[in-house]
Amino acid sequence: MSERQLHLNAFLMGVGHHEAAWRHPRTDPSRLDDVRHYANLAVIAERGTFDSVFLADGVQLFGDVRHSIAAGFEPLTLLTALAGATSGIGLIATASTGFSEPFNLARSFASLDHISGGRAGWNIVTTAGDRAAQNFNRDANAEHGERYRRAAEFLDVVTALWDSWEDEALVVDPASGVFADPDKVHEINHRGDFFRVRGPLNATRGPQGHPLLVQAGSSEDGKAFAAAHAEAVFTAQQTFEEGVAFYADLKGRLAAHGRTPDQLVVLPGIVPVLGSTEEEAARLNDELDDLIVPTRAVHQLSELIGFDLTDHPLDERLPPFPPVTRINGAKSRFELVRDLSERDGLTLRQLLRRLGGGRGHQVVTGTPEAIADHIETWFRGGAADGFNIMAPLLPSGLEEFVDHVVPILRRRGLFRTEYTGTTLREHYGLARPRSRYSALSV
Amino acid sequence: MSERQLHLNAFLMGVGHHEAAWRHPRTDPSRLDDVRHYANLAVIAERGTFDSVFLADGVQLFGDVRHSIAAGFEPLTLLTALAGATSGIGLIATASTGFSEPFNLARSFASLDHISGGRAGWNIVTTAGDRAAQNFNRDANAEHGERYRRAAEFLDVVTALWDSWEDEALVVDPASGVFADPDKVHEINHRGDFFRVRGPLNATRGPQGHPLLVQAGSSEDGKAFAAAHAEAVFTAQQTFEEGVAFYADLKGRLAAHGRTPDQLVVLPGIVPVLGSTEEEAARLNDELDDLIVPTRAVHQLSELIGFDLTDHPLDERLPPFPPVTRINGAKSRFELVRDLSERDGLTLRQLLRRLGGGRGHQVVTGTPEAIADHIETWFRGGAADGFNIMAPLLPSGLEEFVDHVVPILRRRGLFRTEYTGTTLREHYGLARPRSRYSALSV
Ligand SMILES: Cc1cc2nc3c(=O)[nH]c(=O)nc-3n(C[C@H](O)[C@H](O)[C@H](O)COP(=O)(O)O)c2cc1C
Ligand SMILES: Cc1cc2nc3c(=O)[nH]c(=O)nc-3n(C[C@H](O)[C@H](O)[C@H](O)COP(=O)(O)O)c2cc1C
Repeated sequence: MSERQLHLNAFLMGVGHHEAAWRHPRTDPSRLDDVRHYANLAVIAERGTFDSVFLADGVQLFGDVRHSIAAGFEPLTLLTALAGATSGIGLIATASTGFSEPFNLARSFASLDHISGGRAGWNIVTTAGDRAAQNFNRDANAEHGERYRRAAEFLDVVTALWDSWEDEALVVDPASGVFADPDKVHEINHRGDFFRVRGPLNATRGPQGHPLLVQAGSSEDGKAFAAAHAEAVFTAQQTFEEGVAFYADLKGRLAAHGRTPDQLVVLPGIVPVLGSTEEEAARLNDELDDLIVPTRAVHQLSELIGFDLTDHPLDERLPPFPPVTRINGAKSRFELVRDLSERDGLTLRQLLRRLGGGRGHQVVTGTPEAIADHIETWFRGGAADGFNIMAPLLPSGLEEFVDHVVPILRRRGLFRTEYTGTTLREHYGLARPRSRYSALSV
Repeated sequence: MSERQLHLNAFLMGVGHHEAAWRHPRTDPSRLDDVRHYANLAVIAERGTFDSVFLADGVQLFGDVRHSIAAGFEPLTLLTALAGATSGIGLIATASTGFSEPFNLARSFASLDHISGGRAGWNIVTTAGDRAAQNFNRDANAEHGERYRRAAEFLDVVTALWDSWEDEALVVDPASGVFADPDKVHEINHRGDFFRVRGPLNATRGPQGHPLLVQAGSSEDGKAFAAAHAEAVFTAQQTFEEGVAFYADLKGRLAAHGRTPDQLVVLPGIVPVLGSTEEEAARLNDELDDLIVPTRAVHQLSELIGFDLTDHPLDERLPPFPPVTRINGAKSRFELVRDLSERDGLTLRQLLRRLGGGRGHQVVTGTPEAIADHIETWFRGGAADGFNIMAPLLPSGLEEFVDHVVPILRRRGLFRTEYTGTTLREHYGLARPRSRYSALSV
């Protein structure tokens, strides 16, 4: 196993990633509010020696209430529950830099890292949309560029807080009564444009030093942020060519930050629609697309890309899209949807079907062998270091992937058969950072 | 068991509540960062059919770093981990209304309530001290009265968000594709002095409707807040007479809010220092007090009461205390410490010994029989509905309480032998609130 290895992340979402998953007979939507459902998914992914499980997040109710799928969980608490149900797999939670305080967020992730023995990761998102902002004392969201400036400062504060207790800070000597070495515990005294934070954090440094830093925005601002700060990137890419271009672009930006290509792992999303034959897989795909509720889908889409299509007739071709500079939402997803619909001249209904499986992530329909081939092609061809696996139905789609695709990848020597490390950083082959304050005293 | 029953909460704190617990040979301070230590404590408390476990919290590092005892955990994540290690006991986390957003806090507690099957409680604190504020973009903390006004508005927003999904909101009909009833999911459209929040919450209503609301400030503002909103109150009372007066005062305030005395449970703290004989208990008490590090203790005390004593000579009597109106910290604790030291004419060193065990909570030293008598006296005498048990050493002090005191209380018919309900509200005998929006449509 000295060969370069794939990384796999199980993106968990309710009873499946497909828009209409909860309507399909193979799912049980009554389990959306049941923590054991999510624990079961994590256990399945761990059986497949996935690097990690991942939970997306928003701070608003999306879409129209009638069709909006809500459950009772917040990612950090849910992942903490999953930590107890598993022992090896990484746990990545999304949290926004837009609507929380760096001190609180740094503590919660440090806590998850302690509780899980070094398995925590943070998917850093800036959060688009006015609806979100309206839950936090504002009428409208901040402008896209400002959101990323705030994110950069937020991250700087959070990492400084994680560093504020050096690894060697704890003395814990009952005889003398000395608990910590005051020279190794630091006020951070941050004063920036968005935050003033004194520190130190009231939590000791976690097993990983910093939880793994993940990023998931692919706009120009998003890529710049990722190149400077992220260690893993989730992205949506429709074609192999686009995947290769994105991969080269992102890896090429690292040198300017003094980083090497292996310090950032690129993980495109993929929705594997599996069947034991091509026909069976295609049938499942059609069944799912037939269950799409267009009014729900068009609401979701409009919010996802920050461009309102709710009044557009379903069977007419899409209107011209405005310039991306006028979009204050998720810019990269807007561009992806625009390109897709313009390239193929789609009606709104057709577009909704194309996006129903993965909200812009590629949907690959086929046998386990075909899916494994697809993954290998992207992996060897310079389009991916691994994948974000988005099963259309849960748990069945994840179970099938673990039982039928993972064994093929293992046989081909592309994927681990057991965990060789104990932390999420070790799974992804990423170094444990030193405290910025330790570095000073070397 | 038709008699009025005691309620017991296990206040968990590191390796014990005594100041110097970590220096005593019966504790293992290396376990401060080990989640299994806390899980073990919760399991012990559950074996004792305690109503709940409780975690205090602050958003700063307290005292001087050298002697400050820090661990890696934040209460909501840690309690989520404890939820998985237990099945019946309630889980109460402290969280501040001063430095977080109501939307985020409402979600996290709703999530814990879902994950734990209805066992979540929130100890609502306002957070005193400038050091805390300096971690959140401010130079100084808000004034005491303003903190409580903010708390009242914060709580109103949080409960409205919990109510924003009525119990009957979920339709989940795969056939029609209708997930929720839009008439039963509400925007809250809150516009107040401190917050503007649109809603609805992006989490369905939890098993308890509202997690249990606990309050722990005993100043005039604190009592007014408790009478209006709290369902359980933690308090520090040194003498039986003070306990009776506080109890009567608080219960007497309920009627003005249209509430009955049984809608609020009063739980004074008690530090039981147990021994199989009086001598053994007294010896343990002395051993612990002898381990106090005065510089640590004086820092902690100064921060706790918001009055700086760090330069006062240890063996001199305390200086006159300023009027409480000039204190912007925890006013009730300030008054308690002032009264104690004036009444008994204490030197600083003597005061530190008196406070070392429980930071102002009563320390009761004796045999299990004597401790049970003390509890029964307060309970029958109108000073308490139950107790907040603060073991001086953990786990040993909690284990002894469960194995030796709880059986006596059970034999006397004062305390449950098994859980009769499944939620925290049921343990405390408190009703499940209806959504404020359901009430409208009746
Ligand atoms: C796999 C994946 C998961 C994502 N998860 C979230 C999420 O949970 N919450 C969120 O606000 N944005 C998430 N994003 C990012 C958004 O899609 C969007 O790209 C981002 O908010 C802003 O990106 P921009 O840089 O493209 O404008 C995710 C992206 C990808 C590719
Ligand atoms: C048992 C108990 C536990 C408490 N836990 C906390 C806590 O975790 N965090 C906190 O800020 N205040 C806590 N308090 C409240 C403070 O001691 C203080 O009373 C409060 O912050 C302000 O109260 P005041 O109304 O007396 O000024 C607790 C009080 C008691 C009695």
